[in-house]
Amino acid sequence: MAFSDEQSISREELALAARNHGMPLEALRYDITPTGLHYLLIHYDIPVVDSAAWRLELDGSVERPLLLSLDELMARPAVTQPVTMECAGNGRARLSPRPISQPWLLEAVGTGQWTGTPLAPLLEEAGVGGDAIDVAFTGLDRGVEGGVEQDYVRGLAVDEARRPDVLLAYALNGQPLPPQHGYPLRLLLPGWYGMAQVKWLRRITVLDEPFTGYQNVKAYRYRRTPDDDEGTPVTRMACRALMAPPGIPDFLSRRRHLNVGPCTIVGKAWSGWAPIERVEVSVDGGRNWQAADLDQAVGPAAWRPWTYSWSSVEPGDYEVCCRARDAAGNVQPDAPDWNVGGYAVNAVQRVAVTVAADHS
Amino acid sequence: MAFSDEQSISREELALAARNHGMPLEALRYDITPTGLHYLLIHYDIPVVDSAAWRLELDGSVERPLLLSLDELMARPAVTQPVTMECAGNGRARLSPRPISQPWLLEAVGTGQWTGTPLAPLLEEAGVGGDAIDVAFTGLDRGVEGGVEQDYVRGLAVDEARRPDVLLAYALNGQPLPPQHGYPLRLLLPGWYGMAQVKWLRRITVLDEPFTGYQNVKAYRYRRTPDDDEGTPVTRMACRALMAPPGIPDFLSRRRHLNVGPCTIVGKAWSGWAPIERVEVSVDGGRNWQAADLDQAVGPAAWRPWTYSWSSVEPGDYEVCCRARDAAGNVQPDAPDWNVGGYAVNAVQRVAVTVAADHS
Repeated sequence: MAFSDEQSISREELALAARNHGMPLEALRYDITPTGLHYLLIHYDIPVVDSAAWRLELDGSVERPLLLSLDELMARPAVTQPVTMECAGNGRARLSPRPISQPWLLEAVGTGQWTGTPLAPLLEEAGVGGDAIDVAFTGLDRGVEGGVEQDYVRGLAVDEARRPDVLLAYALNGQPLPPQHGYPLRLLLPGWYGMAQVKWLRRITVLDEPFTGYQNVKAYRYRRTPDDDEGTPVTRMACRALMAPPGIPDFLSRRRHLNVGPCTIVGKAWSGWAPIERVEVSVDGGRNWQAADLDQAVGPAAWRPWTYSWSSVEPGDYEVCCRARDAAGNVQPDAPDWNVGGYAVNAVQRVAVTVAADHS
Repeated sequence: MAFSDEQSISREELALAARNHGMPLEALRYDITPTGLHYLLIHYDIPVVDSAAWRLELDGSVERPLLLSLDELMARPAVTQPVTMECAGNGRARLSPRPISQPWLLEAVGTGQWTGTPLAPLLEEAGVGGDAIDVAFTGLDRGVEGGVEQDYVRGLAVDEARRPDVLLAYALNGQPLPPQHGYPLRLLLPGWYGMAQVKWLRRITVLDEPFTGYQNVKAYRYRRTPDDDEGTPVTRMACRALMAPPGIPDFLSRRRHLNVGPCTIVGKAWSGWAPIERVEVSVDGGRNWQAADLDQAVGPAAWRPWTYSWSSVEPGDYEVCCRARDAAGNVQPDAPDWNVGGYAVNAVQRVAVTVAADHS
């Protein structure tokens, strides 16, 4: 991993930012993110898949390997659930020094209405052996990363894979998966960061030894130092609140311009560890905080909507901030918490707002 | 307009790149760009629109002003047509010095299957006066740009607005317009850059004097110098060919890795001025060029598919390039042609490819 002490962004980072896209933050107004606004992180290229020829293999340490067509998967019991998904690197570009990778600010999130068939009954049907430890999920996407040519593969503990809410998803927002979200089939693991939710699935392999592939052992680990820290795995989403920036934007600076008078700030909050139990807003850069009003989430794995009434907006310059706390006691730090890969950087969002006296 | 001599990208440019997204170039394999992969440039914020309350006003210098609901527009004659659309700023980030704005590399393009009702009969029905010069199209999006608070408004010569292929579009790829593409209604002006295709339309105003709004008179002009050049309007798309980068990518550098053996390179080419009549490919950085094979476009306003057979790929490092020529004689320059706003920067695409000896 390389790092930059500069505020400015390299050409390599720009090339990534031009193809991987965030969710414009005004889309926090939607409970379900409209298709095309959900964030995307594509490690390699989006494969073009002929779904008629495509098959899912389920093999490895099982009694009865399975080979399944898309029609066979769609004929099985279907579950539809809203799931909030975030890139593990969301917030990375706010670090200093900054790890050189996809330079996310805050936009790498979205909530899809996903439809698929539960994985657990398929594992049951295949007859997972008692020695099973991990399950490897292999995508059709292939590339070079850290000098290693590889398929995109992630391992997951067999007990996590057996959770009843884990789906093999073939639809998003009532339509077949778009190519960029994993057509024809992807893994859906509610509560976890996106790297675990393998797209373009072609193979599920049950292992009776720990998975040691690149994406688990080299990438996606929390490390304090680049060289001598083995680190710990990146798993569930850290606690975070984000607001739709109030008022109207300046095209270039994105600074917000707001009218005098009352203003309702809206946003969402989520955590992969526990339900959100409190959201607070500050309009003075974090010196004073007030509780926002929480609404019900549209599902147990979806972000929780919140609103905050800024009752009397007066002329001036403001820094509006928000932060969440979950039922496990997780909170957001004021300043980014550094790690080598730039994962789970959930420092408080800060939005610069100008209220002009004549802007009523 | 500010400029940068640095290769690196400022934080303001990154904030724009994080919300406006390009089409990953592997999506050049599709004739019709899947929803969510089409490029997006949002000047201000995406408005949330209640389509039941929404109305389109058609007023100004007309005999019978119209007020139309979405249902009324959808009850009119419908046309579906594939249209290639590109951002006028596509390629801007390749300039030096670089105009500070959305830092597009090459990805700001897409082809949608758009459905809508022709504008010309509506103008006829309203009774456009004989003195009409321009038509102003106003969106629901509002922001600050160049220090001026404004709705997004573009003017268009009345004769262009009357062209039979100009649509008021309410569907993309067989679905209602996604919010980010202008729900519930947008202008569709085949052949022109995206800035003219006003999203979230709320008003069409016929003018009997020239339109002098910001987006036509200040922005979107070809100028050689920032201060004393009034410039000329940005209108139709310049001639361009792009390829889906061959082989597989390195995650970070996007350098391509290719196998020894035959390789078919695929891409698309388009011009807003005339049909594409030739595409050429070079694998040696532009010293030698060979003709690609052209296929038929899926419609008169859609990009033209092309393929190039690289018959015997040998180990080595390559720079693969492509360039198009249209029937009006327009060609692409080898190096970017500078202008103040960074518009229509259509220099040839260059893709770095490595073929390893053991990579067969």
